[in-house]
Amino acid sequence: MKDKFYQYIQDLQDSITSKLEAIDGKAIFQQDLWERPEGGGGRTRVIQNGNVFEKGGVNISAVHGKLPKSMQAYFNVGDVNFFACGLSLVIHPKSPMVPTVHANWRYFEMYDQDGTIVDQWFGGGQDLTPYYLFEEDAKHFHTVCKTACDKHDPEFYPKYKQRCDEYFHNTHRNEARGVGGLFFDYCKASETMSMDNWFDFVTEVGNSFLEAYVPIVEKRKDLTYTQEQRNWQEIRRGRYVEFNLVHDKGTLFGLRTNGRIESILMSLPPHVQWQYDHHPEKGSEEEKLIEVLQQPKNWV
Amino acid sequence: MKDKFYQYIQDLQDSITSKLEAIDGKAIFQQDLWERPEGGGGRTRVIQNGNVFEKGGVNISAVHGKLPKSMQAYFNVGDVNFFACGLSLVIHPKSPMVPTVHANWRYFEMYDQDGTIVDQWFGGGQDLTPYYLFEEDAKHFHTVCKTACDKHDPEFYPKYKQRCDEYFHNTHRNEARGVGGLFFDYCKASETMSMDNWFDFVTEVGNSFLEAYVPIVEKRKDLTYTQEQRNWQEIRRGRYVEFNLVHDKGTLFGLRTNGRIESILMSLPPHVQWQYDHHPEKGSEEEKLIEVLQQPKNWV
Repeated sequence: MKDKFYQYIQDLQDSITSKLEAIDGKAIFQQDLWERPEGGGGRTRVIQNGNVFEKGGVNISAVHGKLPKSMQAYFNVGDVNFFACGLSLVIHPKSPMVPTVHANWRYFEMYDQDGTIVDQWFGGGQDLTPYYLFEEDAKHFHTVCKTACDKHDPEFYPKYKQRCDEYFHNTHRNEARGVGGLFFDYCKASETMSMDNWFDFVTEVGNSFLEAYVPIVEKRKDLTYTQEQRNWQEIRRGRYVEFNLVHDKGTLFGLRTNGRIESILMSLPPHVQWQYDHHPEKGSEEEKLIEVLQQPKNWV
Repeated sequence: MKDKFYQYIQDLQDSITSKLEAIDGKAIFQQDLWERPEGGGGRTRVIQNGNVFEKGGVNISAVHGKLPKSMQAYFNVGDVNFFACGLSLVIHPKSPMVPTVHANWRYFEMYDQDGTIVDQWFGGGQDLTPYYLFEEDAKHFHTVCKTACDKHDPEFYPKYKQRCDEYFHNTHRNEARGVGGLFFDYCKASETMSMDNWFDFVTEVGNSFLEAYVPIVEKRKDLTYTQEQRNWQEIRRGRYVEFNLVHDKGTLFGLRTNGRIESILMSLPPHVQWQYDHHPEKGSEEEKLIEVLQQPKNWV
């Protein structure tokens, strides 16, 4: 399973980066290969200062070895070996009319002393963070998510949509990071879902990513915008930073377990503002966004 | 003691904000009074878009009531009442030639069921974060810190200077936030220092703040700088954000205990950049700064 899934995310990284380069038409992804001293490594691909994409990363990694102490405590296990691989991406477009997107698909194994797998699971998801709310874009994104889920279990979409709303939430601001999508974790073999079934589900979602995001980019990338709208985008990007640095388990985990800092923090936006006590004008488009972030909607 | 110290920080807030307004010559502090539903409140003063200061806050607060659950665990005590007051300031100048400064002075009391004080202590410090390193500025700042300390105990400066280096450290980057200063906490009555002695020490440091910072601002505020130097400042400000959101106990504490968000996050810089895998040129001024941040120096 680990070889099959790692092969899958390698191919997916290729297809996502080539598609995004084609859309951008100017910038290309810079590739950095890195090794983890304790075992494994990764292939980081970052795009910067494009026509469409101001900054983004589409990274894969596969790491293995002794489970770090901090992870032992987290998973409540002893001194075991592990393998983990995944693809993580965050794309920050230049235009405030084009939403930021985040996605991640990952697979985890733990072994006993003999090297036998004692636990294994998939996790992942994809979610959208607009700066201006086009309801049809949120509907499109969620519709693609739902279609991918429904092929496997009609209960998946409502369940994983809700988990996404709960997870990507800036509790200290009492607002969602964005309009959500899917979030799932600890997808383990059960009576109804084998690991092969989970593989089919996770790759179905992974394969739906470009379909979920690209039509939105195509539709919004050439809209004009003002400096005020750009400022608003940079202020909202500040909330994105707050979520990733204060609340996101993956980021904090990476920072505390000596992960490759630049690959982890590629998720941070290129230009960000913090203004004291900023509030959008009553009845404005900016305020409409905040209202939806404070009260997550059902988009499909 | 609590009334005496709160009176002190009220007066100190006045003297600091008037001096900074005089230096800026354009922007004035906007004042927000706020109340804490559970008891107490604060007086937040924020300056933005000045000639010299791009964004800064000089805030005081005095809060009391039942110790929040999260603080009970932190202090390892039960269901007790508390009082806490303090002044916190962060100043982000516009010019990359002028360092950012942070300072905080605070006092804490805990009570038993009868309202008798069972524990009380002072804490605080001040530290400097330059974007370009003028060694004489770091020396000046530390000399003022040392002079204030030496009046009370010759061991204070080396001890609190080292604690500052240890505390304001971005462990995930393996570099200091800035060139340090002083950091002290849990200053409790002992055989050699009564609470009155600690009051004298903490107010001595508080009174030294303007002397430590203002001459540096005056000396550097009119230097010219390039867009590249401004970019470097914004990238370094990103490290400031990383420290405050990932590591700073005060910030995380405030975010997790329902503090006034805008007063806590006034510390975040106005304009910030994150570039992927940015490294200064060999032999440049920017690299010289990094070297000092990776290997804290003794400035006096």
